[in-house]
Amino acid sequence: MAASDHGARRRTLAGIEIFRDTDRDDLARIEQRCRWRSYQPGQSVIERAAPTHEVHFVVAGAVRVEDHAASGRVVSFQDVREGGLVGELAAIDGGERSASVVAVEPTTTAALDPRSFLNLLADHPEVSLATMQRLADMVRQASGRIMELSTVGAHNRVHAEVLRLARERAGSDGESARISPIPAHADIASRVSTTRETVARVLSELSKQDLIRRERNALVVPDLPALTELVERARAE
Amino acid sequence: MAASDHGARRRTLAGIEIFRDTDRDDLARIEQRCRWRSYQPGQSVIERAAPTHEVHFVVAGAVRVEDHAASGRVVSFQDVREGGLVGELAAIDGGERSASVVAVEPTTTAALDPRSFLNLLADHPEVSLATMQRLADMVRQASGRIMELSTVGAHNRVHAEVLRLARERAGSDGESARISPIPAHADIASRVSTTRETVARVLSELSKQDLIRRERNALVVPDLPALTELVERARAE
Repeated sequence: MAASDHGARRRTLAGIEIFRDTDRDDLARIEQRCRWRSYQPGQSVIERAAPTHEVHFVVAGAVRVEDHAASGRVVSFQDVREGGLVGELAAIDGGERSASVVAVEPTTTAALDPRSFLNLLADHPEVSLATMQRLADMVRQASGRIMELSTVGAHNRVHAEVLRLARERAGSDGESARISPIPAHADIASRVSTTRETVARVLSELSKQDLIRRERNALVVPDLPALTELVERARAE
Repeated sequence: MAASDHGARRRTLAGIEIFRDTDRDDLARIEQRCRWRSYQPGQSVIERAAPTHEVHFVVAGAVRVEDHAASGRVVSFQDVREGGLVGELAAIDGGERSASVVAVEPTTTAALDPRSFLNLLADHPEVSLATMQRLADMVRQASGRIMELSTVGAHNRVHAEVLRLARERAGSDGESARISPIPAHADIASRVSTTRETVARVLSELSKQDLIRRERNALVVPDLPALTELVERARAE
């Protein structure tokens, strides 16, 4: 099976960010304790509220951390790509899974039991610090989103999300950007907490204002400074 | 000066939660590196975006972590009481101050420079783990708030906040609660991201439904199960 082969080729944690300063021999011992698993897009890696506490290192592919309201609305928190990890909250505090995690690409993870993960943190201050830096980043991202949800309307949150995606892909001059593939309306909606219909309407408005242009396989932002100004003006209101 | 006396009486970190497993001699060395400061309610402990990176241990009193939108709206993130700490994000990742911190009671903090804090984390795995557990809790709280902002209207967020305050003070039978002193409308508004006017209107409605009762110095919730049902019904819609 392709997915397993894929996993077998990559049974190393060398690319995981929190291990960037860990020596090769120590890493080999951790690798031996991991269970390696492959997932197809859409498959569940962690189920919300499940009584599991492993940490998953994302060795290849990408996963999405998301939660579903009782109403069915999906709120997505972050996409974690190759080199990252998910599931560390429950491993660290023993609490329940606060969100679900689903593969969004063909993905391989290395799952480590919580006891081994905690021993690893205790024995390796550099891994501990890297883990704290990740958590600090998660708190900062979440606080920024709370501010945005508290103070900026849905239209402007869609503008801000397009700007974020554009900046990740901006050309070296910072004047324009090409977002490819074109992001799904549902993905933008779950990231900024609005409906797909609102996303469609706002993108159509941006298009009429020549702030975005839809091409065959990309969303082009021809004038980044103009979009930036639109977003910042809304924040100041 | 009363504030300084107050500080002088309490120059110990023994009550700080992340030091619960740290031995007395090690703690004494950390105490010597701290700068001890007192604040009156309303005084700033940390300014947003300031180029400072100390950690403040809250030795006495209470502080509020909050941010101000360009529009002037205040969003409060958490109140940290005696035993807690603030300012750890910037110490851990070297980034800028993501929020401001202001005293809400007469407060004493012990400020430790970021280099000493990072050395402390590296030398004391138990402090490191306790710090990670705090950060994990902050991520969980923030995720819960993002879900609430994304899926529940302002009215129901006020109901949920009254329920949270009531549960913190519930009588042992869990049937009723007395919230005292009466929380300010502005404080509830900044915690659930709405206006004071909305808070006033919603409390008045709850009062008409006999779900809350205003007494001289307390807000009484006579029937916790009924308020719980109101909050949970809104989540399922």
